[in-house]
Formats: sequence, C-alpha cells, structure tokens
Amino acid sequence: MDPDRVIIFDTTLRDGEQSPGISLNATEKLEIAHQLARLGVDVVEAGFPIASPGDFEAVRAIAREVEGPVIAGLARAHAADIERAAEAVRDAGRGRIHTFISTSDIHIEHQLQSTRADVCGQARAAVAHAKSFCDDVEFSPMDATRADVEFTAEVIAVAIEEGATTINVPDTVGYATPDEYAAFLRRLYDLVPGLGGVVLSVHCHDDLGLAVANSLAGVQAGARQIEGAINGIGERAGNASLEEIVMLLATRAAHLGFTTQVNTREIARTSRMVSRLTGYVIQPNKAIVGRNAFAHESGIHQDGVLKHRATYEIMDATTVGLEGNDLVLGKHSGRHALRSALLELGFQVDGQALNTAFKRFKELADRKKQVTAMDLEALVTDELRDALRSYALEWFEVDIARNRPPHARVCVRDPDGEELVGDFTGDGPVDAIFRAINAATQREARLREFRVDAVTGGQDALGEASVVLELAGQSAAGQGVSTDILEAAAQAYVRALANAERKVHAAAEAEPAAPEPELTPAP
Amino acid sequence: MDPDRVIIFDTTLRDGEQSPGISLNATEKLEIAHQLARLGVDVVEAGFPIASPGDFEAVRAIAREVEGPVIAGLARAHAADIERAAEAVRDAGRGRIHTFISTSDIHIEHQLQSTRADVCGQARAAVAHAKSFCDDVEFSPMDATRADVEFTAEVIAVAIEEGATTINVPDTVGYATPDEYAAFLRRLYDLVPGLGGVVLSVHCHDDLGLAVANSLAGVQAGARQIEGAINGIGERAGNASLEEIVMLLATRAAHLGFTTQVNTREIARTSRMVSRLTGYVIQPNKAIVGRNAFAHESGIHQDGVLKHRATYEIMDATTVGLEGNDLVLGKHSGRHALRSALLELGFQVDGQALNTAFKRFKELADRKKQVTAMDLEALVTDELRDALRSYALEWFEVDIARNRPPHARVCVRDPDGEELVGDFTGDGPVDAIFRAINAATQREARLREFRVDAVTGGQDALGEASVVLELAGQSAAGQGVSTDILEAAAQAYVRALANAERKVHAAAEAEPAAPEPELTPAP
Repeated sequence: MDPDRVIIFDTTLRDGEQSPGISLNATEKLEIAHQLARLGVDVVEAGFPIASPGDFEAVRAIAREVEGPVIAGLARAHAADIERAAEAVRDAGRGRIHTFISTSDIHIEHQLQSTRADVCGQARAAVAHAKSFCDDVEFSPMDATRADVEFTAEVIAVAIEEGATTINVPDTVGYATPDEYAAFLRRLYDLVPGLGGVVLSVHCHDDLGLAVANSLAGVQAGARQIEGAINGIGERAGNASLEEIVMLLATRAAHLGFTTQVNTREIARTSRMVSRLTGYVIQPNKAIVGRNAFAHESGIHQDGVLKHRATYEIMDATTVGLEGNDLVLGKHSGRHALRSALLELGFQVDGQALNTAFKRFKELADRKKQVTAMDLEALVTDELRDALRSYALEWFEVDIARNRPPHARVCVRDPDGEELVGDFTGDGPVDAIFRAINAATQREARLREFRVDAVTGGQDALGEASVVLELAGQSAAGQGVSTDILEAAAQAYVRALANAERKVHAAAEAEPAAPEPELTPAP
Repeated sequence: MDPDRVIIFDTTLRDGEQSPGISLNATEKLEIAHQLARLGVDVVEAGFPIASPGDFEAVRAIAREVEGPVIAGLARAHAADIERAAEAVRDAGRGRIHTFISTSDIHIEHQLQSTRADVCGQARAAVAHAKSFCDDVEFSPMDATRADVEFTAEVIAVAIEEGATTINVPDTVGYATPDEYAAFLRRLYDLVPGLGGVVLSVHCHDDLGLAVANSLAGVQAGARQIEGAINGIGERAGNASLEEIVMLLATRAAHLGFTTQVNTREIARTSRMVSRLTGYVIQPNKAIVGRNAFAHESGIHQDGVLKHRATYEIMDATTVGLEGNDLVLGKHSGRHALRSALLELGFQVDGQALNTAFKRFKELADRKKQVTAMDLEALVTDELRDALRSYALEWFEVDIARNRPPHARVCVRDPDGEELVGDFTGDGPVDAIFRAINAATQREARLREFRVDAVTGGQDALGEASVVLELAGQSAAGQGVSTDILEAAAQAYVRALANAERKVHAAAEAEPAAPEPELTPAP
C-alpha cells in the first residue's frame, strides 16, 4: 500500500451510537453501514457485541451484508467479550476484533481497581485470544494520553508480540494538544521497535475542540489510521469529525501528502442520514456539513460568488455532494421512476417496501409540487424506522380555539393490532397530543426533549420531529416526518415510546452479571 | 501586563452577525454586548458601522452603554469607513478602530482589482487616518495566510510605522494548518522588527475544523490576542469558537502557561443567549456548550460519575456555568422575587419592562409548576425582540380534524394598531397559520426555514420556534417562545416578517454607491 495512504476507520455506529439519546435499531444501523461502504471508509466499527443482544445482532447483520469495508467489533480485554465479538464479525468478508484496556493509572486504580502488572497480563491474554479467532486484531491502550508513556509502550509491545496488527492510541478524554499528542506518538515509536511493523492509529475526542488537529498531528507523526465519526458524534463532545479530517487531507493534499479512499461526494448524504436517524442536529456553522459551510449557500449574491469564487472558497460544494442532487420527481412520476431515483440515492427498494414508498411518495407529491432527492431520502429513512415498530399512529384530531386550552384525541394501534383511543386537554397542541398518546397506551412516559426541523426549504417543506422521552427509567428517541408538524410530532412520540418499551423489556431481561457499557465509555 | 496574558477579542456581533439568516436588532446586540462584558472578554467588536445605519447605531449604543471591554468598530481601508467607525466608537470608555485590506494576490487582483503598491499605500493612509481619531488601532492584512509573506510583512511594517497597536493576521478562508500558521507568524516576527512592540493577534476560520488549533499555534508562536465568536458562529464554518479556545487555555494552563481574564462561569449563559437570539442551534456534541459535552448529563448513572468523575471528566460543568442555576420561582413568587432573579441572571428590568415580564412570568407559572433560570432567560430574551416589532400577533385558531386539511384564522395588529384578520387552509397547521398571516398582512413572504426547540426539558417545557423567510428578495429570521409550539411558530413568523420588512425598506433607501458588506466578508 502507498505509504502515505491513510486508513479511515469509522466509529459512528459504536462510539457515536454511545451518545445519550441515540438508539438506532438494527435496520437503521445496517442502512448507515451500507452508506459508509458507499462513502468508501476502510473500516466500519459496527458496535460493541457484548453490550446487548441488539448490539450483537446488528454487528452480525452488518458483517453478513455489508461488502467492502473491514467490519470491526469492540471487546474489552475479557474472554467473554472477545468471543462475542468474534462470533459477531465471523461472517464478514474481512472481520476485525478491536480489544482495549486502560493504561492510565487513574483508570487502573479507580475504574479497573487493578494493577499495572495485571493490565499488562490482561492485554496479552486478550490479544492472543482475539488472534485465535481473527487475523486482524486492533488493540487500544485506553486513556493513553494521560498514561505513563513507558508503561503504555510496554503494553503495546506485548500486544504486538501477540499479533496485534493495528495499535490505536486514544486521547479518550480529549485532553491532549497537537504538540503533546505528536510527541507521545514519536516517543512510542522510539520505545517500541515493533510499532514500525504495524499500523498506528489515532482516536481523538473533541472536548477542547482539538480532535481534528490532534488527528492531523498523529498522521504527521507516523499514524496511518484515523478513527472518527460522521458529524463528529460520540461520547461527550464526540470524536474527530470524519468529514472534517477527510476534507482536510483532501483539500490540503499538495501540502500534507496524504491520501484516503473516501468518495467525498457521499459526505453530505451520509451526514444527513446520520443526523436524521440519530436525531442529532448539525449546527449551521459546522465545518463541511453545516448548511452555511459553503459561502454560495449564504446571502452572498450569486453573481458575486461566480465572479470571485476562488477568493473565498477553498473547497467546491460539489466535492462533498452538496450539489448535483437535482433529481426531481413530480405527481406524474411512476413507480419505475421512483425506484430508479431511490437506486440513484443508494437505496435498493423492491416489493412491498417499494409499494409503501410509492404510496408515501404519491401522498407527498399531492402536497408538494416538486419532490426532491432530499425529500426522498427523508421518506426512505422514515420508513426504515417502522421495521421494529410496536405501536402505530392511526389518526389524531386537535381543537385549537381562542381562550380555551387545546384538546387532542388520538388513536394508536398496539402491537396486537388493537386500536386504542385516548384524549387530553393540554397546555399546547403538542402537549395535548403527547398526553393523549400516554392516555391511549396507558403509559406514563415523560417528555425530555422535543424538536422540529424542516427537511427542505420552502413553504411546503417536509417537517421532521424528534422526541426524547423517558419511560420507567429508560430514555429513548423517536423521529417522524410529515408536511404536518403535529403529525410528525405524534409519529415521533409513538416511535420513541416503542423504542423505550423495547429498552424497558431488555433491561428487565438482562441478567444481573451483564456488562454495563454505559460505565465503560471505551476508547 | 503579564507576558502570558492573552487578550480575548470577541467578534460575535461582527463576523458572527454576518452569518446568513442572522439579523439582530440594536436591542439584541446591546444585550449580547452587556453579556460579553460580564463574560469578561477584553474587546467587543460591535459591528461594521458603514455597512448600514442600523449597524452604526448599534455600535454607537454599545460604545455608550457597555462598560469594561474595549469597543471596536470595523472599517475597510477607506476614509469614509474609518470616519464612520471613529464616530461610532467615539463615546466608548476605550474605543478601537479595526481597519483591514487584503494582501493576497488572489484578493488584490480579483476582488480589489488593484496592485500591491496601491494596497500598501491604502494601508498606510488608513492606519494614519484611524490614528488621527483613536489611539487604539488594529490592522488586519486580510487573507494573509494565502498571501506572499514578504509582501504581507511589508504592509504590516507600514501599519506599525503609522501607529497600529495591534496587528491581526487572519486565516480568512480557514485554509492553514497549525504548523503552517505558526511558521507564517514566526516568519513575520523575523521580517518585521517592530512586531515585537505591538500585540500580534490571530483570527482563524473553521472551514477545515482547525480554527481552535490554529489559534493555539498562534499564541504558541507569540500572538497575545485571539479573535473568536461565541458558539463559533461567523462566515461559512465560522470563527474559532471563543468558549473552546478559552477553556483550552484554562484547562491546560499548567501545560500551556497562558492566562485570560474570562469568567468561564458565564460561558453557558452567553452561549444560550447567542443561540437564542441568532436562531443558530448548537449541536449536542459541540465541545464545551453542547448538551452532551459533559458526561454527567449523559445516561451514565449518577453514582458512576460521582465515583469516577476524574476518570472521564477533564473539566467540571460548574466552571462553564452549566450547573448552579438552581434558582426556581413558582406561581406564588412576587414582582420583587422576579426582579431579583432577573438581576441575578444579569438582566436589569424595571418599570414597564418589569410589568410586562411579570405578566408573562405569571402566565408561564400558571402552566408550569417550576419556572427555572433558563425559562426566565428565554422569556427575557423573547421580550427583547419586541423592541422594534412592527407587527404583533393578536390571536389564532386552527381546526385540525381527520380527513380534512387544517384551517387557520389569525389576527395580526399592524404598526398603526389596526387589526388584520386572515385565514387559510394549508397542508399542515403551521403551513396554514403562516399563510393565514400572509393573507392578513397581504405580504407574499416565502418560508425558507422553520425549527422548534424545547428550551428546557419536561412535558411542560417552553418551546422556541425559529423562522427564516424571504420577502421581496430579503431574507430575515424571527423567533418566538411559548409553551404552545403553534403560538411560538406564529410569533416567530410575524417577527421574521417585521424584520424582513425593515430590510426591504433599508434596501430601498440605500444609495446606489453604498458599500455591499455581503460582498466584503472581511477578515
């Protein structure tokens, strides 16, 4: 391989999915993994298989179905974790087990309540065990940047001795500066002669706003794998934003000299899909994928931009796929046109799914003159959410008059197909609808967050509602899409309720000895 | 001054306010400037006085009223710009004129259509002219990082010769890497002996995700002023996020050795105020101010966090003011309690404004058991928006039934006090309301963006709606707050309409020779 080629490792589905309020189901994870393959990332870290049966199933489904990238599963340095990860990635074209253990004294003492010697032994056993299942093994000394560099080097040397093929050095708490991080990595190269024979990887968190700069400093110091997540999601302030680091390497290739295999034209679509399915908004001024990241989308007059483009633009919006989505369907477009349009967007939709999509497309085309690529994306990702739906919204009515609080009636169909009706007089129409859904389903869910965004511009835009609610101590998110924001909100609430119920059941079924992934934020 | 003390220069009201869709009125700018003073920034760049009469008035009001920071006004290297800026900041305790001209050939040739010699002459004349009005003069060679370093050094030497006290080196298009930027600044120190005698400043854009890292590299190379904006807003991907660079210097003070005078406990409040008044959301994973930036807000069990706090947290949420807002009022709280609570939040509210605030507080307390500091902040910032309101929403009704499109009736009071009623049958309730407002006011405004966020958690949360619309070629934003999202949406639409009308009038009144600030993105 070209010595300046950088491997892009995506952890949207693992570190990203650990973010509070995100609860992707297996269908959604699979759809994201397919899109990551189209984006051309080299490695997809698909999940943490031991964390839950759902996580295991999702990793296994991705390993079986998604072609192209290496599919990685995360495992603590325990035999049970590693066996579960090995089983989950076994059917992948190319699978990877990623195992980790902390080398910082603060983690060793307070979290692991262990000793350096024990950590070193666990790392050795874990890598050897992983290697017995899979050739491709990645090892991470967690919280490395706050650890003693000599002890970390010792553990890394052991991991390489046992056959680790990638060594990842995480800045787990987002603490390092670029100079420190580069110096730490250079020191590791000095201390571990074998490090030159494996791939060194960087994994940076953005707590102090330095994740992208630290990743760059890492590859400049010799690393050839960068771990990141789409839209920079992940624990706390998130991981290095994958689209930022990729576009940095691409835009400054002449100066930096690195290459990647990412198809940057898929960036915008991947970003929208992840934002939509996770319910995590992208701020307008976010680099690369924010709606204002490219000047020509701003209020600057078109002719000014055309005249002066190079004066204020260092990247062309088409290179990240922001333009060129000029595909437009109308109310006279048929099933075949819809299928082709979806295929062009990367969604292969046939049979019953195509019928459903066509029905929703026709409803939308009746309300909206032009149905754009972004509308279709929203509809298809919306349909994905139904795969595991346990409740379904049937209809609702709201009465909103002057000087009288709004009154809502809703009908929800339960998993057994029974129609449940409830009503409520609330402070506002959304409040009334949500409480009416509680009344219909006899659930005491509490709303934690609520948001509505427009999917596309214009008066007849599709609205997308996001709800986070809490039920019996479990919080879960749901989204809904409609031209009517109250319908989108009701849909989102019903789905969040279904997701929360699944979590409540899963928690009730979990054995007492089960791992607590929330207490193990991982690299 | 301590040689390691870094001057914090805030450009939220200038570069930040140039972002598409942001249209702050003078009252809102003044409120943000007061909050920036409480935050303890050293310099507030209050606007671009020649850009419009509104910008001029806002800068002058801030210069007259806001105590503490230096108040700066931006000016191109033209006599008229400088005179206007001088007049605007004249009454400040300490005023500054910030003048700029590009030194990159790409800007000189394509935008200025001029020559290097002419640019050098203009810079000399501009600094000299500014100096005749004001001791404190900052000069920026725009697009410096893409310019010839020797020519840039020549222009900087001229500016220093004419008395510039701060030299700011902008990475206008967000193109530099930390290594390059530091090398560029070190080269300037070599080429310009006088640079050691003035303050060197950095101004970085985030197009490639490196604004904070480049700012850090700048101070490590000798700069002692950092320009940034709250929430990282600004042209395209925005400026260095002020809260990130400040918390980086604070959190890593032992390693980096720099100090600032910022009161970090005001960061969260400042961030919320700017987000609310600009309508720019903050993504959940945004460093420092995103809702997930601190682990203890995530799903991690409270006892886990308490046990292991240092294991995953490098900053304490209280240091950025995220906790400690435990102030709570209820329906029995009186006018005096409200006034004290507002004062504690930094809002001095008396007379008629207090009566209005109390009335809205009581309405809210009727609907919501506990009124928190964040609710009060939202109400007060909502009231600020009314200062220049020309239309007012009186009432609305919506009929939402099964199998029938929603029908809305609204009543809007026009600037002359007349009540205008309109109705419309729309695709959804929001669509119906917005078009009914168009019908009532006989305006053909087109919706561009629409969003609803919850201000606080919980079922009885306040909702905040943001609207961007377009009227006769002008786009403008408006926000509204209510426990009823349809009311918040209607309020936001009416305000956006009023803002758009002001812009349409201003554009009609502008002389043909007036500057076009949108074509002049400035440093």
